[in-house]
Amino acid sequence: MPHKIILDTDPGIDDSFAIAYAIAHPDIELIALTTIYGNVTLEQGTENALKLLSAFGGKADVAKGESGPLSIEQNHPSDYVHGKNGLGEYELPETDAKPVELSAAEYIVKAVNEAPGEITICAVGPLTNMAKALELDPSIASKVKEVVVMGGAVFHVGNITPVAEANIWNDPHAADITFAADWPLTLAPMDCTMPVIFTREDLQLLADENPKMGAPLQAMSEFYIKFYRSVAGLHGLVPHDVMALMWITAPGAFHARKGALAVATDGPAIGQTLFQAQGKTSLSTAFDGRPNHTVLVDTDVKMFRSNYFGVLCAK
Amino acid sequence: MPHKIILDTDPGIDDSFAIAYAIAHPDIELIALTTIYGNVTLEQGTENALKLLSAFGGKADVAKGESGPLSIEQNHPSDYVHGKNGLGEYELPETDAKPVELSAAEYIVKAVNEAPGEITICAVGPLTNMAKALELDPSIASKVKEVVVMGGAVFHVGNITPVAEANIWNDPHAADITFAADWPLTLAPMDCTMPVIFTREDLQLLADENPKMGAPLQAMSEFYIKFYRSVAGLHGLVPHDVMALMWITAPGAFHARKGALAVATDGPAIGQTLFQAQGKTSLSTAFDGRPNHTVLVDTDVKMFRSNYFGVLCAK
Repeated sequence: MPHKIILDTDPGIDDSFAIAYAIAHPDIELIALTTIYGNVTLEQGTENALKLLSAFGGKADVAKGESGPLSIEQNHPSDYVHGKNGLGEYELPETDAKPVELSAAEYIVKAVNEAPGEITICAVGPLTNMAKALELDPSIASKVKEVVVMGGAVFHVGNITPVAEANIWNDPHAADITFAADWPLTLAPMDCTMPVIFTREDLQLLADENPKMGAPLQAMSEFYIKFYRSVAGLHGLVPHDVMALMWITAPGAFHARKGALAVATDGPAIGQTLFQAQGKTSLSTAFDGRPNHTVLVDTDVKMFRSNYFGVLCAK
Repeated sequence: MPHKIILDTDPGIDDSFAIAYAIAHPDIELIALTTIYGNVTLEQGTENALKLLSAFGGKADVAKGESGPLSIEQNHPSDYVHGKNGLGEYELPETDAKPVELSAAEYIVKAVNEAPGEITICAVGPLTNMAKALELDPSIASKVKEVVVMGGAVFHVGNITPVAEANIWNDPHAADITFAADWPLTLAPMDCTMPVIFTREDLQLLADENPKMGAPLQAMSEFYIKFYRSVAGLHGLVPHDVMALMWITAPGAFHARKGALAVATDGPAIGQTLFQAQGKTSLSTAFDGRPNHTVLVDTDVKMFRSNYFGVLCAK
C-alpha cells in the first residue's frame, strides 16, 4: 500500500527537492500539493507548484491556500534565500494546469474525511493552512493518518532569529494550534535537517542520472548554495523539506524524542518552538494538557543520502 | 491510570535499582516480579526478588521462571559482576514470602489475558521467559500493552563479547523469538544505558534521603562499582535495568530509532543484536518479514538522573 500524501508547500527550492522525491518514490502516492505563502507569495508559490509538477512529470491536484498568517503580519521577504521567483531565478516551462476550486484547507478536510486513517499530511511551509483546516473541521485530527511538519529549531539555533525557524516564525499562532491538536504529529526541525548537505557534486549526479528532475534542481540550486555559503560557510544546500517525506518512507533514518510542543507567539522569542520531553515536569504551564508528539533530533546522514539519491537516480 | 508492569528480572544489582524505582514510582503499579537465571541462578534470583520486595516495602507477586536457556548451554557465571549472591555479597533480611504456583511464563500469559491492552512487560534479564510465554500463548503478542527489553548493544560494543551484551548472549534463541514477534517492543540496549553513571556520591544521597531503599542499594553497590572500575575505569555503576522502566514513565528522556531486530544464534557473533533501520534495505534476509520496533540509542542523562533521584528521594 503506497503512502497517500498531501504535501503542504511554499515552493521554494528545498520544497522542489521534496516534490521531486514524492513524485519519484514508488511507495508514495502524491495526492495533492496544497500551497501556502512563505518562501514566496501564495500566487508565485502556486504557479511554482503547477510548473514543478508538470516539469517533473507528476500527477497531483494543486489547491491554493492562505496568503498570509492567521493574526499577525509576520511574513518576511525571502528573496535572498530562494530568489525572487522562489526557484533561484530559474525559469521552468509554462503550464496550462490550474488549481482546483477548493481552498487548501477545504481540500485537506475533504480528502481526510473521504479516506479516514489513510492520509498523511506533510506540511513544509508556514502552518496557516493546517490551522485553517483544523478550524474548518476539528474531527480531521482523529481521521488523519499522520501529520509531519518541517519547521522549528528545538535544540538547534534558529535561522531567522536566534531561536526561531522561518516556517514557525511566519505564523506562530498557526504553528501553536497545529502542535496543540491531538493528532499523531512528527516534527522535523532544523536539528534533523542541518546535518544533511547536498553539494554541487551531488547536484551534478542528479542532473546526470535523472535529467528531468535533476537538471532543473541543479539549475535552481546555484542561488540557494550561494546563500548557504554566505550565511553558514557551507559548500552546498540543506534539503530541509525532504525530511518530512523521508520520515514516512525511511523512519529508521532519524533519531526521535517524545514530548509536547508549544510556540512563543509574541515577545523576543516569537516563533520559537519549545519542547518539553515526555516525563519531564517544569514550572511552565505552556504544555499543560498538550499531547506528546515525536520530534526528530538527529539524522543518519548516510542513510538519508543513500535513500534520496537511490530514489531519484532509479527513475 | 498507573502503568501496570510485570518486571521480568534476574536480580542482580542494577535489577535492584529498577525494583526500587518500580516500587517508589507513584505512577507504576508493580504487578509481579517474574524471575529468570542470568546474573545469578534462578533459585538465588527468586530468593533475591522476594527479599528485595520485602526490604523495599513492595507488594507484588513473584513467579519463578526458567532456569536456563531454551536450547544451548550458554549461561556464564557472573559472580565477578554482581557477587556470588547477586547482591554484591550484601545480605538482605530473610523473608517468609514464597513465589506463586504459576511459572513466570504461565503468570505472564494469565495476567495479559485477564487485562488485555493494559500490561507492560519490562524484561531485564535473558529472554527465556518471554519466549516461553509466546510459545504457551502466541495471542499475548496482540494483547500486551508494550514490551520493553533491556539488552543488546546496537551501535555500542558488547560487554561479554566484542559484539554481544550478556542478556541477549545468555539466550540468543529466546531473544530472537522475542524480537521476531509482532508486538509493540522497545529495546533499551547498552547504547542508552552506558551514558548513565551513578557515583558513590549519588549512592550516599539515596542512603541519606531514602534509607529503606538507599542504604541496601548503597551497600550492595560497592562490589559492582569495583567491577566497573576494573573493567571500564568508571567511578560508579551503570543502572542498566532502570532504563526499561524509565522508557515507560519518562519516554522523553531517550533518543529512539525505528527498525527491525535480529540476533545471531551461532558463530563468532553469537548473541549479537542486529538492527536494520526502517526504510533501509540490505542483502541480509534476517530482517525479512520482521516488525519494526523502537530502539533507544541515547539518553538525556540529566533528565534521567533528575527523574530517578526525584522518585527515590520523594519517598
